[in-house]
Amino acid sequence: MPELRKDPVTGRWVIIATERGARPSDFKSAPQVISRGFCPFCEGNEDKTPPEIAALRDYGERNQKGWRVRVVPNKFPALQIEGGLDKRGDGIYDLMRGIGAHEVIIETPEHVTTLTTLSAQRVEEVLVTYIERLNDLKKDKRFAYGLVFKNVGSIAGASLEHTHSQLIVTPVVPITVTREMNGAREFFHYRGRCLFCDMLNQESSSASRVVADGDEYIAFEPFASRFPFETWIIPKRHRSHFEVVPRAELRELAEVLKDSLVRIESALENPPYNYIIHSAPFNVAETEHYHWHIEIIPRLTKVAGFEWGTGFYINPVPPEKAADFLRDVGK
Amino acid sequence: MPELRKDPVTGRWVIIATERGARPSDFKSAPQVISRGFCPFCEGNEDKTPPEIAALRDYGERNQKGWRVRVVPNKFPALQIEGGLDKRGDGIYDLMRGIGAHEVIIETPEHVTTLTTLSAQRVEEVLVTYIERLNDLKKDKRFAYGLVFKNVGSIAGASLEHTHSQLIVTPVVPITVTREMNGAREFFHYRGRCLFCDMLNQESSSASRVVADGDEYIAFEPFASRFPFETWIIPKRHRSHFEVVPRAELRELAEVLKDSLVRIESALENPPYNYIIHSAPFNVAETEHYHWHIEIIPRLTKVAGFEWGTGFYINPVPPEKAADFLRDVGK
Repeated sequence: MPELRKDPVTGRWVIIATERGARPSDFKSAPQVISRGFCPFCEGNEDKTPPEIAALRDYGERNQKGWRVRVVPNKFPALQIEGGLDKRGDGIYDLMRGIGAHEVIIETPEHVTTLTTLSAQRVEEVLVTYIERLNDLKKDKRFAYGLVFKNVGSIAGASLEHTHSQLIVTPVVPITVTREMNGAREFFHYRGRCLFCDMLNQESSSASRVVADGDEYIAFEPFASRFPFETWIIPKRHRSHFEVVPRAELRELAEVLKDSLVRIESALENPPYNYIIHSAPFNVAETEHYHWHIEIIPRLTKVAGFEWGTGFYINPVPPEKAADFLRDVGK
Repeated sequence: MPELRKDPVTGRWVIIATERGARPSDFKSAPQVISRGFCPFCEGNEDKTPPEIAALRDYGERNQKGWRVRVVPNKFPALQIEGGLDKRGDGIYDLMRGIGAHEVIIETPEHVTTLTTLSAQRVEEVLVTYIERLNDLKKDKRFAYGLVFKNVGSIAGASLEHTHSQLIVTPVVPITVTREMNGAREFFHYRGRCLFCDMLNQESSSASRVVADGDEYIAFEPFASRFPFETWIIPKRHRSHFEVVPRAELRELAEVLKDSLVRIESALENPPYNYIIHSAPFNVAETEHYHWHIEIIPRLTKVAGFEWGTGFYINPVPPEKAADFLRDVGK
């Protein structure tokens, strides 16, 4: 059973994989490369993953062929689904059992390495699957937060190349989300408006950092981008939770997400990247001050001592220049 | 002139290198490798660095041979030393000019790739140099914070292998330091004691996570280690600022730092790593609740979407096991 331990200085939680217990020699080999041989995510290999949790299917039974999107538990889960939290102390320290969920969303039965290979309609089905899984897991009162994320490329933490996303549900609200919510709440108290709504209005009217400006969504390079070509997608309609977005609004999101990724892949020749969906915690009611969004982070620069020690980032590409490059793709 | 921009959501500052303006093609090549040819940090190549700021010397003039430790400006500084801050707004955003200092501490004239090659006495001289530079830069009232850090290995952000450290001075207090200080202040208000003093007492008495327990310093694996073999060195004597540590206490620090690095290098076969020195900001008076310390971070695991999105870390080596391995080195 993994353990959740809290850093008493910052309040940050860490998942300690007490059972896995890697040895020093496990780190001596070269970085993991993505296997190009057998792929457990391909159609026909359904018995090589843990049993299916959900799927969108054209035909076939559970754990058989015929699916378009398939959700399975992660074979090496960061958190365990069964059991109570058993919150406790150890002197000045706080810990609990590593309870949560860790699922893999296999985005297509074909062996393709990027989501952008799929049509916008099929990307929309991936988004629908995210939302269905979040709403199902939200019913479990032990859980506080669900993060949907994607790792592409070895440097960005992927261990299989077949295009997939992941969903980790945690029993405490992650510190990054708490900090975003606190910052947005402070802005709301001071100005009486949603920070993200203000941001999308300012970006849309100045346009210098905009990559795509649609009816329902805007994609732009944030003013204080931590990383070169960091791209955020913000819905124009204010909502604090991603999992309540109605189906009618997911097609344009699929189009904007696919378009942003195509531009990044094209300008940077298929870089490693992560994307994450930030949404309000499960047990927080719809609120005026928080606004769900997607952050896409190409992994082009290294995080070194200065960044770890300060939280400052050094970005060698001004976001206005990055937006120029991304807008020019395909012209 | 680089620009400092503030993320309106989290309050985090980012350094935008507006002049450097890297192009997408700059990121297409393989990761930088450390040059094994000509080395600008070696004795005899003093004219290949920007002019010397300070040095500890056996003989010779400024910018000539005869030094043991040499400090020069970084050739590609993250921040510029000259000018005013020009703090201003742009709609909802805040920014200022990228003013600060960025220095390189060359730890030895010989071409060696790790600090542990040096005697404890010479490591002590490196620490003395850190302190002298911090005290000199602290006099400039534009500056709020000085971070001493070290990058070893390409993965950890080093671009030259000749052993060196860096010092970046910023005009605002970094968010990571503010968060540590806030957490420690909260603990102090609740318990009436310094969190770090409590931590070192608990670690010293339980001993399960201790790597080395000296008269003046303790080296241990923190309870909520974010990374495998993360090691902190905390002074037993409470002080909030590193730069006021008297010379008499630096020899044991040099010994404990060298010993910790030797153990990490030996157990993990010279892994990439960073270390950082966390100290209270320049303009904060000595305080009961903050306690300077060193954090050593071996760079063995990847930071992926889950970590970026939540601030959670997944550590596959329990710190108690890591301490066992590090204590066993050389036995």
